[in-house]
Amino acid sequence: MRLRVITAGGTIDKVYFDAASTYEVGEPQIGPLLRDSNVTFDFVVESVLQKDSLAMTDEDRSLIRSRVEAAPEKLILITHGTDTMTATAAKLQGIADKTIVFTGAMQPARFRDSDAVFNVGCAVGALQVLPPGVYIAMNGVVSPADKVKKNRAASRFEPKA
Amino acid sequence: MRLRVITAGGTIDKVYFDAASTYEVGEPQIGPLLRDSNVTFDFVVESVLQKDSLAMTDEDRSLIRSRVEAAPEKLILITHGTDTMTATAAKLQGIADKTIVFTGAMQPARFRDSDAVFNVGCAVGALQVLPPGVYIAMNGVVSPADKVKKNRAASRFEPKA
Amino acid sequence: MRLRVITAGGTIDKVYFDAASTYEVGEPQIGPLLRDSNVTFDFVVESVLQKDSLAMTDEDRSLIRSRVEAAPEKLILITHGTDTMTATAAKLQGIADKTIVFTGAMQPARFRDSDAVFNVGCAVGALQVLPPGVYIAMNGVVSPADKVKKNRAASRFEPKA
Amino acid sequence: MRLRVITAGGTIDKVYFDAASTYEVGEPQIGPLLRDSNVTFDFVVESVLQKDSLAMTDEDRSLIRSRVEAAPEKLILITHGTDTMTATAAKLQGIADKTIVFTGAMQPARFRDSDAVFNVGCAVGALQVLPPGVYIAMNGVVSPADKVKKNRAASRFEPKA
Repeated sequence: MRLRVITAGGTIDKVYFDAASTYEVGEPQIGPLLRDSNVTFDFVVESVLQKDSLAMTDEDRSLIRSRVEAAPEKLILITHGTDTMTATAAKLQGIADKTIVFTGAMQPARFRDSDAVFNVGCAVGALQVLPPGVYIAMNGVVSPADKVKKNRAASRFEPKA
Repeated sequence: MRLRVITAGGTIDKVYFDAASTYEVGEPQIGPLLRDSNVTFDFVVESVLQKDSLAMTDEDRSLIRSRVEAAPEKLILITHGTDTMTATAAKLQGIADKTIVFTGAMQPARFRDSDAVFNVGCAVGALQVLPPGVYIAMNGVVSPADKVKKNRAASRFEPKA
Repeated sequence: MRLRVITAGGTIDKVYFDAASTYEVGEPQIGPLLRDSNVTFDFVVESVLQKDSLAMTDEDRSLIRSRVEAAPEKLILITHGTDTMTATAAKLQGIADKTIVFTGAMQPARFRDSDAVFNVGCAVGALQVLPPGVYIAMNGVVSPADKVKKNRAASRFEPKA
Repeated sequence: MRLRVITAGGTIDKVYFDAASTYEVGEPQIGPLLRDSNVTFDFVVESVLQKDSLAMTDEDRSLIRSRVEAAPEKLILITHGTDTMTATAAKLQGIADKTIVFTGAMQPARFRDSDAVFNVGCAVGALQVLPPGVYIAMNGVVSPADKVKKNRAASRFEPKA
């Protein structure tokens, strides 16, 4: 089993820069996170964007699609900001023979109480058993990407009405 | 989505009792772990055993089977000690219409660097998309339970030769 | 032993609000932090300000001084943003019969790798044995407040030249 | 400022060995703990014993005394099991010109909710401002070592009656 992780920024990768008292998207957390979890599968991490997902453009989404299409791996995990995760997922529909699972976090991975480790675990567990398609794994629930939306006020994903 | 978590003890639930300088299987960690991960699915936790898995007997395994059979839920997550996880899984073969995923941890959930949160996330992600059967989710890999074994020296699960 | 903790905001109390993708000073972390550390002394927490210390004004500093003077306790711990900690400390000089120790954090207390717990521990250890005066406890070093400055680029406190 | 840390084992250094399902005193945690806390003072770590403190003998205590006496540093931090911390401290009375502070933990440093980081911070804060003598820093309180005892049932240190 081998998977490619494409990182697009978002809350999961936010770090705190004391020197500037700012809080920005930093280096991808997913590599250390997977190694600390003692995973035995092969993976490669490709950092495509380091953006808050509210700042992502159509060009950014096209870039992500082109990177997914170019990937030799069949299994693609994408870490992404939660606010526009469904919009990017919509742009990845119709790529043949690839299983693509998006995940992210409501609290930065560096936080003590972050949901990042659980969410990534959930995405990895689903990714390897799902048929090709585009999915979102958030809050412990794995769904086709076009069936969920973020409830911003409640900070969670929910089924689309 | 609703799942039943059956807890059988093991390292994942080990706590440290300072008053006795001992280290024992304690209360199941899975409920707080799932709540802290902000899962939105329904779950119920049933504590069946609080044992190191090396101490489990045939009667214990029969008890676990009977609790799985009695469960109204179709999705069953079992947290279990890693040393005899495959032995208990073998006793659960042939239960119709249930998807059963075992997981556990090499380091207690209370540890800073525990693999518990990732493993449970991985098991939950796989559980909801797998067909009925008995599986093990450890080290980020989900396998039919009869295809893996623990490599005790390396503290990880591997494919059976 | 009894101490009063006056909280003035700063990085130590920064939390992440997913709903707004912002990162702001939140509720004081010090109460839960001390309780989680199983301290046996009495303490009371008084939240005076919830500000980034770069935003603090002379009025804010006068307010802190008046709260310290009004405190019935002899031992005062102040959690404060690091950028202007020395400026506020300078305003507290000359209060008779009180030992005042400032501390804070370079990474929010909610972070896995925060220096908050260590810094607060260090401040508490020093506070109870120091003679009256105004001190800063950062990076494991306790100094009279007028003898140190923050090295912003290196994110640490150092002796004044 | 420079201090020597003498490590004598105890709960603070307990780790979990999955391969043997045992829980033993491991490598000293204090070096990484201090580095992770971004301390700026100089320190050297000397591992003298790796024992549960209930297993310590008179010879062990004599060894610790001889190591303290041989230390070129004036400031000595000793991490030690809590059960017999006061007994070892009693053997260190009367060493001229050294400030010696004992600390330890009720929960291993590797635990998420360990009191180790706070306790070490507290000990470091007190060590640098106390006059020569032998002290215990536990539960946020710094006392002359002969004035406290462990309340085993409550897992905390208290003043001697």
